[in-house]
Amino acid sequence: MMNHDRFLSRAAEQMKESAIRRMGTLLAGGRDIISFAPGYPAPETFPWDDFREIAADLLGTRDGRVLQYGPTRGYRPLLETIGGIMHARGIPARFEELLVTTGSQQGLDLVARVLLDPGDVVLVELPTYTGAITAFRNVQARMVGVPQETDGVDLDALDATLRRLRGEGQRVKFLYVVPNFQNPTGLLIGLEKRRRLLEWAASRDVLIVEDDPYRELYFEDTATEADVRPIKTDDEEGHVIYLSSFSKTLAPGFRVAWIAGAPALITKIETAKQAEDLQAGSLDQRIVYEACHRGVLARQLPLLRRHYQEKRTVMARALEREFEGAVRWPAPKGGFFLWVTLPHEIDADHMITRAVEHGVIYVAGEAFFVGAAQPNTMRLSFSAPTPARIEEGVARLARTVEEEIEDRATEGARYEDRIS
Amino acid sequence: MMNHDRFLSRAAEQMKESAIRRMGTLLAGGRDIISFAPGYPAPETFPWDDFREIAADLLGTRDGRVLQYGPTRGYRPLLETIGGIMHARGIPARFEELLVTTGSQQGLDLVARVLLDPGDVVLVELPTYTGAITAFRNVQARMVGVPQETDGVDLDALDATLRRLRGEGQRVKFLYVVPNFQNPTGLLIGLEKRRRLLEWAASRDVLIVEDDPYRELYFEDTATEADVRPIKTDDEEGHVIYLSSFSKTLAPGFRVAWIAGAPALITKIETAKQAEDLQAGSLDQRIVYEACHRGVLARQLPLLRRHYQEKRTVMARALEREFEGAVRWPAPKGGFFLWVTLPHEIDADHMITRAVEHGVIYVAGEAFFVGAAQPNTMRLSFSAPTPARIEEGVARLARTVEEEIEDRATEGARYEDRIS
Repeated sequence: MMNHDRFLSRAAEQMKESAIRRMGTLLAGGRDIISFAPGYPAPETFPWDDFREIAADLLGTRDGRVLQYGPTRGYRPLLETIGGIMHARGIPARFEELLVTTGSQQGLDLVARVLLDPGDVVLVELPTYTGAITAFRNVQARMVGVPQETDGVDLDALDATLRRLRGEGQRVKFLYVVPNFQNPTGLLIGLEKRRRLLEWAASRDVLIVEDDPYRELYFEDTATEADVRPIKTDDEEGHVIYLSSFSKTLAPGFRVAWIAGAPALITKIETAKQAEDLQAGSLDQRIVYEACHRGVLARQLPLLRRHYQEKRTVMARALEREFEGAVRWPAPKGGFFLWVTLPHEIDADHMITRAVEHGVIYVAGEAFFVGAAQPNTMRLSFSAPTPARIEEGVARLARTVEEEIEDRATEGARYEDRIS
Repeated sequence: MMNHDRFLSRAAEQMKESAIRRMGTLLAGGRDIISFAPGYPAPETFPWDDFREIAADLLGTRDGRVLQYGPTRGYRPLLETIGGIMHARGIPARFEELLVTTGSQQGLDLVARVLLDPGDVVLVELPTYTGAITAFRNVQARMVGVPQETDGVDLDALDATLRRLRGEGQRVKFLYVVPNFQNPTGLLIGLEKRRRLLEWAASRDVLIVEDDPYRELYFEDTATEADVRPIKTDDEEGHVIYLSSFSKTLAPGFRVAWIAGAPALITKIETAKQAEDLQAGSLDQRIVYEACHRGVLARQLPLLRRHYQEKRTVMARALEREFEGAVRWPAPKGGFFLWVTLPHEIDADHMITRAVEHGVIYVAGEAFFVGAAQPNTMRLSFSAPTPARIEEGVARLARTVEEEIEDRATEGARYEDRIS
């Protein structure tokens, strides 16, 4: 077999495998490993009986369109349903402003292809969602990080970064944010800051890509629906491209999400999608539509909020108990993740091998950074494991960290021995 | 709403909507229009009861993985099944050489992203599949056409084109071919020519992208399985990237297809897919797997061959009867299409409006050309309409062409009047 390197595009030369997906491969090994790595929804919450009934009904109709090619824009009744969901979120999106994507990952990829030339700059929160990093990297964009405060991205740093980049002659196309229960930090952007972000985008002529997969999963003990108001709600000029998904609220295996934006952009994105995969799955879109139409989604949401809130509590308590203050994390008011800062001497990426030996995995913080990373950080997903497995996994993690610290101390002592 | 043009990438500026998909939109108007436009499989052939049973079984297991995120490479048992299908086609593909794509359109898009830089050249048959044109155009590749003979692409012209382009300093990355019942011409590349194509690729250090969605649909009155032997079968060095799909043999709404190639390329394509949409649908992949595993696919294939052969015959006879020799087409030995050459004075694209008035549509040949088109050509799909609708549609088409010729003649006469 010949070597194919000479045939690769420059984009392909730069492509890297996602750390999270690599974890998935690791996990497939079959050992008893408790995974806090991928942000999987809890399968025991899936409405199995409803899906089975819906699928049987749809395939029982023998209506050719259920399994036929369909429009790139999406299944029309589903688009109307999404319009209703957007309306309930305070965004009066018309048909021309909406498009169904094959998961939100495709939404990010399409946005990247339609907006970014090689070398164009995307501003991202630091840390940020690794799937967005890979989508933007694949079109050879340059990502520049902006630090976050407890209420989200630091506005002063954001504007200073933009001015610096423009001073260098860089073309800054958009800011990418996950305002609700950010992946990986769990942070929530404050309402006042959302308003100011939109003003900033308008005054600086920059777009905002608002990625909002977790907004329905706010925890009712610390947040309300008012806290998750989209930036897009106040966007009259079309500065915001908004993405959301059914992956976290119905099931990710259907690959059904959507994107909302100015009609001219959505038309371009539709053309890009046409060449990328023609359309999202016909049966999948119809199952999702029926799940909305028959009230399954509405019934699921309060259950899911309680489910994930409970798991968040179990994980936070286990971390407090097992680590006794040696690690810290911002308390998330929703979503799937805890963003943990370990003792400063730990390199979470290096520690992975030991963690696997102890039967627990996570994603090292490194995967979520552009530029310099904080090696002593990790993302823990509490969404998929059961409460008992969360407690056991945190105990395994504590033993892993303890051993790692001991080893580092021994190595340090040996090193001091050598130099003394 | 502001204008967004200044935010668009160069790729987006060049994107164009596919002519076939535009036809789909036209069709959605709801009038009684007989469509020979999109290459839709016949929905009455879908194994509805099997799919319903399979979906109910899968969702009845309550196995979380059925609806969960899954590996980018694809559902492992499906990959093994595809390995078996490839083996039956004479290609011993190992796991490392296979990847499940979200339809073959995504396969083309991924190949384009991994192999092509802006300005790189792709050689294509003339005419060629319009979906490939859009995928290659979206990465800003340059396409150069090579004419076809009755047994497929003209080898002398192919090599002369390559030499000319290289002489100009162009980088030619691959040749794109649909060897079996080509879309749009229905042509079949001869076996000897397949062998010579592979030799040519090896000697010229060019890759071949072999797109093979129709190969199972050979017509037993004029072809055998020996005629559809993939070029990939004899590819020991890894010059051929092979694509195939379940869209034409099970159903397109599942969006499940595959790609086979050298392990290093497949790994790059997997990384590209990861950022593009994470994975093909989990439920869809399992339904397709079960349909193979339970023998549904094997049972369908002979039925489908007869079904489409019969429709091909109905359309060919209707054309002979209605047009009395005024149009011609190469007799296809499989697939979904007739490629019709109309009287020289007809512009098929211009005639579309009149055709819609008469209640029939097709795709004007123009959509399948790169560079100069043959305006008096059209692609007719006989796959989806019933035999009665095919006959009625061809009659409508004949009236359309007749009127168009009369109008042209009148215009011509008027023109002669004016200049005389």
